[in-house]
Amino acid sequence: MTHTNGTLQQLTIIGVGLIGGSFALALKQQLDIKIVGCGRNSDNLEAAKQLGAIDTYETDIGKAVSGADMVFVAVPLGAMEMVFRAMQGHLGADTIVTDAGSAKATVVAAAEQIFADKAVNFVPGHPIAGREKSSVHAALPELYQQRRVVLTPTKQTKPEAVAQVQTLWELTGAFITQMSVEHHDEVLAATSHLPHMLAYVLVDLLAHETDSKEIFQYAAGGFRDFTRIAASDPVMWHDICVANKTALLEQMDAFSQHLMQLREQMANGQFDEVKALFQRAQQARENLQIK
Amino acid sequence: MTHTNGTLQQLTIIGVGLIGGSFALALKQQLDIKIVGCGRNSDNLEAAKQLGAIDTYETDIGKAVSGADMVFVAVPLGAMEMVFRAMQGHLGADTIVTDAGSAKATVVAAAEQIFADKAVNFVPGHPIAGREKSSVHAALPELYQQRRVVLTPTKQTKPEAVAQVQTLWELTGAFITQMSVEHHDEVLAATSHLPHMLAYVLVDLLAHETDSKEIFQYAAGGFRDFTRIAASDPVMWHDICVANKTALLEQMDAFSQHLMQLREQMANGQFDEVKALFQRAQQARENLQIK
Repeated sequence: MTHTNGTLQQLTIIGVGLIGGSFALALKQQLDIKIVGCGRNSDNLEAAKQLGAIDTYETDIGKAVSGADMVFVAVPLGAMEMVFRAMQGHLGADTIVTDAGSAKATVVAAAEQIFADKAVNFVPGHPIAGREKSSVHAALPELYQQRRVVLTPTKQTKPEAVAQVQTLWELTGAFITQMSVEHHDEVLAATSHLPHMLAYVLVDLLAHETDSKEIFQYAAGGFRDFTRIAASDPVMWHDICVANKTALLEQMDAFSQHLMQLREQMANGQFDEVKALFQRAQQARENLQIK
Repeated sequence: MTHTNGTLQQLTIIGVGLIGGSFALALKQQLDIKIVGCGRNSDNLEAAKQLGAIDTYETDIGKAVSGADMVFVAVPLGAMEMVFRAMQGHLGADTIVTDAGSAKATVVAAAEQIFADKAVNFVPGHPIAGREKSSVHAALPELYQQRRVVLTPTKQTKPEAVAQVQTLWELTGAFITQMSVEHHDEVLAATSHLPHMLAYVLVDLLAHETDSKEIFQYAAGGFRDFTRIAASDPVMWHDICVANKTALLEQMDAFSQHLMQLREQMANGQFDEVKALFQRAQQARENLQIK
């Protein structure tokens, strides 16, 4: 057990599901710290307590954050603003607040508006990790090991607050990197949000064909990978689309144009150019050492 | 060892790579049969012999097929027509010819044109199986176990020829189904060829962005699955695009329209409709029990 020099005695986690629960379990293995859970569902919170993720819990957000040195908000993107409003007025002067939202611009805007001069203590974060299953029952202390966590502090964020959040994430075994809010949202739109859109659209398209049962039966390698992606939580992805609409629309347009170009080359019989695209893609994957 | 009542004594495999080699290894475990390998590269054929896939080999196609009761053509789609021409004139009156091409219309058209009245002995086939690695060194006797093999006999194909080919595939542990040439090409365009196009286009698109190194580093779950698909052999996929151009263009157009519809809904703030699409896709996957 590591002690944190008394700087961090109480951590409150709002939203004790897969992300919040795994954070708690990982920290419990490393730190002697009191973790307070908060959520709407007390059965879920009781389960989190039984699993050893949290020490105690509250369903009232104001009560849950009072006395906390740090608050980790791991609720769906669509609930962030409401949670911030409920916390406001109950936070200590130096309480650090951080989050796990997978798009950052809208979360930062809400935090700056609601927390006002206390927004200097808000450290926007995004752990790039997950599982197909959700809920605290799927939480794992090792979920973040060797995974990336991106922190996107703004110009006004206090460096000491960033350092404290970074220290906790490092204890979970994650790699921490920092980038701007805008850059984060662009990179994630390209690498995660766009691929999810493509998978959802493909599965929905094929499910509507008259011979969809047969089509799904013959699902070869390629399609199977797509359906796995399309099994992700629709509400979470709805929230991501709302939050990261601008960057995502740009990526969708760029993709559509590139697909149409391939379509035209095929239609025109320019198959050498078609092959060149396939070769570039294969080479890019090799060069960039994607495993 | 099962004996085939003397009906099948010599099998010739043209193209002893992953597909041809795995077919040979699986049959060698089940049948007392002479397998002749044929290809352009005698080092590869010698390796196939050392691995126990084939008994002997020829680099001349005419010599390789003479005396064969059945010929299995497992060459790239782009080489099928040339191989058929080289076989023509060297086949016995009742020699059955079957293939492993992943699009069927162009292969059947070539067979009917080249084999003329002997095309009744041609059984078009497509084993839906593969690995990321290719070549006979990647061949496995169990590659086809529990995998689907589609046979697409035409109206003129001899039923006895279909039955013989089906019997051999059953010995490899595969499930055999039959459908029309046109239907096969449509189903595969939807479930395999279109997903590969999407993956290639996405990887090529992101590889060209200025921060591609960073983008690939942050490759989250979704993108990683796409890059795996885009690692497939560019020449094979070029050949598939040429052979199945019509069905594939139709699927690409349907996909583009569906993607544009989602794009418009997002741009217009119709996020309930966006969520409904995600829910339909998730539900379709569950209903159709894709694993």
